Amino acid sequence: MEAELIRWLEQHVPRHRALRLPLGDDTALVEMPSPAGVLVTVDLLSAGVDFLPDQVDLQRVGRKALAVNLSDIAAMGGKPTAAVVALALPREGALAQAQRLYAGILPLAAEYDVAIAGGDTNTWEGQLVIAVTVLGQPHARGLLRRDGARTGDVILVTGRFGGSILGKQFDFNPRVREIARLLDRYQLHAAIDVSDGLALDASRMAAASGCGIVLDTARVPIDPAAEELARRDGRSPLEHALGDGEDFELVLAAPPEEAARMLDEQPLEVPLTAIGHCAAEVGLWSIDATGQQRPLPATGYEHPGT
Amino acid sequence: MEAELIRWLEQHVPRHRALRLPLGDDTALVEMPSPAGVLVTVDLLSAGVDFLPDQVDLQRVGRKALAVNLSDIAAMGGKPTAAVVALALPREGALAQAQRLYAGILPLAAEYDVAIAGGDTNTWEGQLVIAVTVLGQPHARGLLRRDGARTGDVILVTGRFGGSILGKQFDFNPRVREIARLLDRYQLHAAIDVSDGLALDASRMAAASGCGIVLDTARVPIDPAAEELARRDGRSPLEHALGDGEDFELVLAAPPEEAARMLDEQPLEVPLTAIGHCAAEVGLWSIDATGQQRPLPATGYEHPGT
Repeated sequence: MEAELIRWLEQHVPRHRALRLPLGDDTALVEMPSPAGVLVTVDLLSAGVDFLPDQVDLQRVGRKALAVNLSDIAAMGGKPTAAVVALALPREGALAQAQRLYAGILPLAAEYDVAIAGGDTNTWEGQLVIAVTVLGQPHARGLLRRDGARTGDVILVTGRFGGSILGKQFDFNPRVREIARLLDRYQLHAAIDVSDGLALDASRMAAASGCGIVLDTARVPIDPAAEELARRDGRSPLEHALGDGEDFELVLAAPPEEAARMLDEQPLEVPLTAIGHCAAEVGLWSIDATGQQRPLPATGYEHPGT
Repeated sequence: MEAELIRWLEQHVPRHRALRLPLGDDTALVEMPSPAGVLVTVDLLSAGVDFLPDQVDLQRVGRKALAVNLSDIAAMGGKPTAAVVALALPREGALAQAQRLYAGILPLAAEYDVAIAGGDTNTWEGQLVIAVTVLGQPHARGLLRRDGARTGDVILVTGRFGGSILGKQFDFNPRVREIARLLDRYQLHAAIDVSDGLALDASRMAAASGCGIVLDTARVPIDPAAEELARRDGRSPLEHALGDGEDFELVLAAPPEEAARMLDEQPLEVPLTAIGHCAAEVGLWSIDATGQQRPLPATGYEHPGT
């Protein structure tokens, strides 16, 4: 089955200029000219946990398995360059499933100029598991990390939040081009991508940076999907925006003068919104129109047992 | 569980000098000074296919999951530098299982100076899956590939073959140091590691190189485990040596004068043995003491459906 898949891939994947070995070899050589080193990240999605195989097209699952890693590289300010794909497939219809997964992976890889540098395709008695590892290059200006926010920084976000379960959890656009454009033009102190929830991931940036983050919750950009979900379940759109997760937008910390320029120039195709600032007192806080500050629960998806 | 595992790893894994970000971040930066590019390879092991979880200590499974990738990097002549580990674990006893896997991974990583650059640890209703991706640097003299053998080359092997099911399939030593020492001192044309069977992998080298490989089967170094297995099942030790697979030794093609020097100097701690030569006629052949040449079946493990 793997040999058949490789033949299929060889017909469907244009040879990437950064890739110096054919897919059939066990090991690929990826061109990586950056002397700063190589970024590497891995994410594993499994049936029944990350997706229900009878409820979602595997094309969307394959796309997501790559996209979450691209989002991780973007959160470091990096440019993804290559990916390897490990699959454990149910024996029944394995090739068709692999092809469906790649039907989601390949267009996204092409869109972001990521070389598919190899993989390992297995069949077994169990359900579907897909683990994608992505390599990337740091931006010439260096790495962005979650721990660089400083008191006085403005907190900005790309895009809108909440309701990702209605579709964005699979179909989001990792903010690779956006972070590159921002780093080309502006000074940023810290970044994190929102996988588990805006409030939770912002609290992680605050904890890592040893500062507080104060969110003007009225300014949080609400996704229409969060409003749709709120109409269905009676929770507020803001609750969804703060806690739903899987938005895969970026939370950024920038010095005030840089943030002002970014907000004025709006250099991205998605909105860039200031939603708060960093304060000396550690923790996550909300602030209202009257200036009153309260602890804000770090809502989001806590992984089991963490 | 993943946070707990990361805390445990932080206590048990010395910070690797090549690793520039802590384990807790989603993405690591690995120092990779080689301008030639980055080698990348991935292997996935799943319960019930690659190991029976109630019959093998997970420490050996973790070790193997890393070791097979080190062997792939060695087959390209590279030096492994970093690994990332993706796990899907049964919910019951997940942390203990992860720790047991890492109890096999970490000493091997330390022995070969490989940084554990991150991972993704998940629990689910299914059985254990482990996918390890390894990054490496090419040797300064360039890449070794399976397709470089030329008519007239001598075929050499490291170590001994057969009977890996009695233990070597888990406990083999990937030939990382060996290939580095050989490339430092000698000219090699091609290499492949024996995962699926000496005969099958040699036939792959022949096919990729567009030449024939003629094996003097009387010279194939037989592992004592192959003899033990032969006593049990009535097949010959040579049949086991040619077809068992999972020896993770290297098959090398070298020009005759280089091969003669290597055989004379025996620069490795494991034996280096000439077992044949490359010929113009494509295919895999055996030759006996009288010089008679016959087609040799490319025995070994054919992956299902290939």
